[in-house]
Amino acid sequence: MAEDFPVISAESDAWDAVTTLAENRLPGLVVTGEGGKPTAILPTSQVVRILVPTYVQDDPSLAGVLSESMADRVADKLRGKTVGALLPDKAPELAIVNHDDTIVEVAAVMARLRCPLAAVMRDGEMVGVITASRLLQLALTPR
Amino acid sequence: MAEDFPVISAESDAWDAVTTLAENRLPGLVVTGEGGKPTAILPTSQVVRILVPTYVQDDPSLAGVLSESMADRVADKLRGKTVGALLPDKAPELAIVNHDDTIVEVAAVMARLRCPLAAVMRDGEMVGVITASRLLQLALTPR
Repeated sequence: MAEDFPVISAESDAWDAVTTLAENRLPGLVVTGEGGKPTAILPTSQVVRILVPTYVQDDPSLAGVLSESMADRVADKLRGKTVGALLPDKAPELAIVNHDDTIVEVAAVMARLRCPLAAVMRDGEMVGVITASRLLQLALTPR
Repeated sequence: MAEDFPVISAESDAWDAVTTLAENRLPGLVVTGEGGKPTAILPTSQVVRILVPTYVQDDPSLAGVLSESMADRVADKLRGKTVGALLPDKAPELAIVNHDDTIVEVAAVMARLRCPLAAVMRDGEMVGVITASRLLQLALTPR
């Protein structure tokens, strides 16, 4: 039940990765490390954190005093960085499922981790990605 | 910066709502109550919880023993229900922003609530919805 999905290496360009995410309206990014194994699965709602300066994350009341051009400067900061540099220091638990898991099992993992996409593994290799909307579609299709 | 987005009343049919979400690959649902005000904003990763029977939510180890046809039966359960019946008992904090909030403010709300969409309000009325991918697109577009 896996689907085609852009998978992005931790070494790739951060600007390209975030642009791809935005242009394709994707629900998140699967970041892979050595051997193509997933090392992080970031929902888009967490990727937007890169737009928020650290001192605003610490004190959200400061967000209102920032000028809009701040966002542009944050975007500029992305250039020349790798995707790996975007990852949070404390990696969240990976939304990983097995190729032979049931729809119910996949839904349970997504719901628990609040992650709209999961990497699908087979014999230790990533064979695809499944999104929450695809999962709903599969579940709602009469067979 | 709001965008067109299907907004669904709590009284509407649950089957139609979930099908719309799946078919349009949307990141979530904005559910409105009386006067068109948002009462719940559900990421798709939380909507898939409807596929997971309650006893599996309580004990995830049971998911593996379910047959795949269980998902079909869960889908059948949706028919004839309203969207309101899908909402969790304890409503999560609403991802709501003001029409004049900056990109940084909107990103901070989405990241904090781990919600890939936010309702945009103006003078107490909802004027649209903004998604995390749209927000990234706005932030990354050179001006």
